[in-house]
Amino acid sequence: MKALIISADRFEDTELLVPYYRLREDGVDVDIAALARGPITGKRGYEVTANLGVEEVRPQDYDALVLPGGQAPAALRDNRGVQEIVRYFFEAGKPVAAICHGPQILISAGVLKGRTATCYRSVAGELKAAGAYYKDAEVVVDGNLVTSRQPSDLPVFLRETMKQLRAARAAASAAANFDLAL
Amino acid sequence: MKALIISADRFEDTELLVPYYRLREDGVDVDIAALARGPITGKRGYEVTANLGVEEVRPQDYDALVLPGGQAPAALRDNRGVQEIVRYFFEAGKPVAAICHGPQILISAGVLKGRTATCYRSVAGELKAAGAYYKDAEVVVDGNLVTSRQPSDLPVFLRETMKQLRAARAAASAAANFDLAL
Repeated sequence: MKALIISADRFEDTELLVPYYRLREDGVDVDIAALARGPITGKRGYEVTANLGVEEVRPQDYDALVLPGGQAPAALRDNRGVQEIVRYFFEAGKPVAAICHGPQILISAGVLKGRTATCYRSVAGELKAAGAYYKDAEVVVDGNLVTSRQPSDLPVFLRETMKQLRAARAAASAAANFDLAL
Repeated sequence: MKALIISADRFEDTELLVPYYRLREDGVDVDIAALARGPITGKRGYEVTANLGVEEVRPQDYDALVLPGGQAPAALRDNRGVQEIVRYFFEAGKPVAAICHGPQILISAGVLKGRTATCYRSVAGELKAAGAYYKDAEVVVDGNLVTSRQPSDLPVFLRETMKQLRAARAAASAAANFDLAL
């Protein structure tokens, strides 16, 4: 399994690092993409290395997309490459997990119309304006989409995200067994 | 299941927060103890609330102990209450997970003689002086004891810590079934 995190400078440190470590605990390979390859720095000063620039991402290589919050989504949301990656995951029905300001990227990619989601309190207005049903809950799961509000929601955010990944893994393994049986 | 984290000001933020969120993802209740009740602040500025002072801790209420690093262990290691809690977990054979400078507390509690463990590089000397076998590995498991070196080890540190908790849970459930069968 392979997951993609897209972020930028001034990410909310725990919202990137906690999912990053959690996915790797489970044996998932994680790539981090930013506007360009290289180091990005969180609001609290943690530095991670983006091993890919957004333009280099082949979204079909990934089983899940994670969008941390902080001020990073504001820098990413109008990028065409970012928007195309997001739309690929929604069209393919693959898990997308966005927390805090992360859903701003989904709003700009135009994928939230008719979907139920949550986000950081101050983002709720534009989420509704984008045609989504806003719910003030620690986690909202709507099909492939997992959203949460803030760092304190990380335990349930990750519980649901890992559940989606396990389901995707089970489906992939069932499909492989079916191929073998043919 | 219930876990105890002991820390103090200037903890390494991820080494406290990542295990804290991970345990809660799994439905584990987590108490945080510090020298006194109240807020403690990490090196990067994250604040968590210690809901217990060390003197209030009843160690027999917990299934596991987590000792994050940073500069917190230096402030905790000479505290008699902290040392007694640590010795209880070792005598009871319950999981103890310590990372980075966390093992300094184990050294001062006198529980490492003859045990195999790792720690932050600069702590290795005093770990050996305390009679432990030092291994430079991302995680070292020796019976109930799980140790790691630094934040980048968190994925394997938590993989092994959660494995210990699952084993403890299975043992508790088997014991409960045995009681029912009598």
